[in-house]
Amino acid sequence: MDNFSYKNTTQIHFGKGQISKLKDEIPADARVLITYGGGSIKKNGVFEQVQAALAGIAHFEFGGIEPNPHYETLIKAVDLIKQEKINYILAVGGGSVIDGSKFIAAAALYPSDPWEIIQTYGAKVTSALPLGCVLTLAATGSEMNKGAVITKAETKDKLFFFSDHVQPRFSILDPETTYSLPAKQTGNGVVDSFVHVVEQYVTYPVNAKVQDRFAEGLLLNLLEDGPKALENPTDYDVRANLMWTATLALNGLIATGVPADWATHMIGQEITGLYGLDHGQTLAVVQPAVWLYKKEQKKAKLLQYAERVWGLREGDEDSRVMAAIENTRQFFETMGIPTRLSAYGLDASIIDPVVAKLEEHGHVNLGEHGDITAADVKEILKLAL
Amino acid sequence: MDNFSYKNTTQIHFGKGQISKLKDEIPADARVLITYGGGSIKKNGVFEQVQAALAGIAHFEFGGIEPNPHYETLIKAVDLIKQEKINYILAVGGGSVIDGSKFIAAAALYPSDPWEIIQTYGAKVTSALPLGCVLTLAATGSEMNKGAVITKAETKDKLFFFSDHVQPRFSILDPETTYSLPAKQTGNGVVDSFVHVVEQYVTYPVNAKVQDRFAEGLLLNLLEDGPKALENPTDYDVRANLMWTATLALNGLIATGVPADWATHMIGQEITGLYGLDHGQTLAVVQPAVWLYKKEQKKAKLLQYAERVWGLREGDEDSRVMAAIENTRQFFETMGIPTRLSAYGLDASIIDPVVAKLEEHGHVNLGEHGDITAADVKEILKLAL
Repeated sequence: MDNFSYKNTTQIHFGKGQISKLKDEIPADARVLITYGGGSIKKNGVFEQVQAALAGIAHFEFGGIEPNPHYETLIKAVDLIKQEKINYILAVGGGSVIDGSKFIAAAALYPSDPWEIIQTYGAKVTSALPLGCVLTLAATGSEMNKGAVITKAETKDKLFFFSDHVQPRFSILDPETTYSLPAKQTGNGVVDSFVHVVEQYVTYPVNAKVQDRFAEGLLLNLLEDGPKALENPTDYDVRANLMWTATLALNGLIATGVPADWATHMIGQEITGLYGLDHGQTLAVVQPAVWLYKKEQKKAKLLQYAERVWGLREGDEDSRVMAAIENTRQFFETMGIPTRLSAYGLDASIIDPVVAKLEEHGHVNLGEHGDITAADVKEILKLAL
Repeated sequence: MDNFSYKNTTQIHFGKGQISKLKDEIPADARVLITYGGGSIKKNGVFEQVQAALAGIAHFEFGGIEPNPHYETLIKAVDLIKQEKINYILAVGGGSVIDGSKFIAAAALYPSDPWEIIQTYGAKVTSALPLGCVLTLAATGSEMNKGAVITKAETKDKLFFFSDHVQPRFSILDPETTYSLPAKQTGNGVVDSFVHVVEQYVTYPVNAKVQDRFAEGLLLNLLEDGPKALENPTDYDVRANLMWTATLALNGLIATGVPADWATHMIGQEITGLYGLDHGQTLAVVQPAVWLYKKEQKKAKLLQYAERVWGLREGDEDSRVMAAIENTRQFFETMGIPTRLSAYGLDASIIDPVVAKLEEHGHVNLGEHGDITAADVKEILKLAL
């Protein structure tokens, strides 16, 4: 096991009716900006619960945060914050709303051009408004970590930043808020959580048993309950298990003391930035291709994954590895998320632009060994056609 | 899954050489009390590392904190704290030193008789000195939680308290500090961790898949690496896996949203208080007896445990349950910890005194259903003879 430092300060309130805890978490004299996305929270009762819990606390609204939240949209919230002297951000939504709200929270106090926050990966952030979350989608884990991904629409740049200052003070996770999700969002969320786990697990062995077994447990939960959520979207236990699984998939715990890959995310981000595919869709396409390309280097962990997650114990090593990769692909398809670029109307013509964007962003030498070059990304994308 | 709230603010620094991080965690102008136990830290190099890291920071020593730390000992540290204007506690040791230091940290600022802290289970604690830890034994989980167990030697009362104020600010977990442990302490630590997990897992099903699979993962780690630590005490990976497993066994994470038993701990505490058995020894004795007595009520989770932890899939339900209980007992014995009261020279004459102490402490109606009465405890102890 490698050395590590770990701390996670977010207060979680999990379960039915927990939105009422907002009144305990947000100071009575706060001036709150409620941030949200396309407005589904105003149709499914979540917004009403939030308003009821905030009774007596001054609050304002900023809606319209899009998937892969745009810098151009978020920056408008900063004006409202200054105008209304807002001092607390409450994100109500999924990962995009929370990520966007992290940027808003930091940008509101940033002394110079806020795009620097992204350009410096958050290193120059020294303060942020306090942020709380009401999560409505099990997917990104943003509700319990310090990362965010922001897109500059003008230049099609999708980039991340990290800062302790934007770690949510609290997050409320009520599985019932996810009952009304479209199937595609449920599917994308399960794929996103799954790929978060494997990016931190299918690398090379360092004899980190807690981390491996926690990762395997999270993957088994997704395999079992992902399809059930599509079949019966209002099964509380299924939604609860997916929600807590998604949070733990990316709250730093399974990352402790182990190498991480993240090549799939880096490549996928550029595909979303350039061609607008959903985040989960890009992961479903790229992940199996990365594994096919790197199956020799990842063999030890792919075999462990094959055995412990898929129960594959028969046949030679190569056939077990290939079966595990194929099973993974089939699982993503079962979740309604196609795993080939061609299924999204994309072909080999995207390869050069995607690689050019990676190089522009300095995202080269990817993977747990830092040995996936631009030439390798081209080969990986060929395997994803 | 039941509703829950969860937060854990302790900063962990894990791995070789991490004791040097003390200088980053403790303010340069602090006046630090280093608390420790019987003095092994002065023989195995840990104390030297601590002193080196604290160079330039004023520090004092308070040694001699015994296993099952005594109120009578701890209270002496409070005088030293007042006399030397100490404002930071650094516990260097295992669970007893950390538990005792939590009490010291709270007692130092407590405005009336500090025994009230215990009598009120910590409810009246409103402040404490900041506490940091250098852990030297994988066992209790105290390094990342807000609980402590204290014994009043005069009256043989072993009792616990909880307070957010005594949650360690940071804990340094260097597996190398555990290389020199006596085999009995390694064995007790593994048994303690194991029983922490099953007290939160072998109850009744609430469809909490994250918690169940994390619990099962921790148990498998202990089964695999516990015996290896006895065979080769200086295997870094083995010690590292045991250390991180023990911390996660009782940091609140696997307790989220599930029922908890704790009957074994409550009964075991009285046996330690009255007869001086090690904490791990009492657990090894009582746990199998609780399961034998409650095997019908716990059947669903015992069957899950039998299958997922022990691989028991053949035979009828009763035989699988009995095999799982017997395997558990054998595992404790393999760790060098006998599982019968008779092995410690105790007989049925202890039953009435133990039950009387439980009643005196108001610890009746135990277990996840609150249905284990004094009469039931007598039957359980008969099964442990």
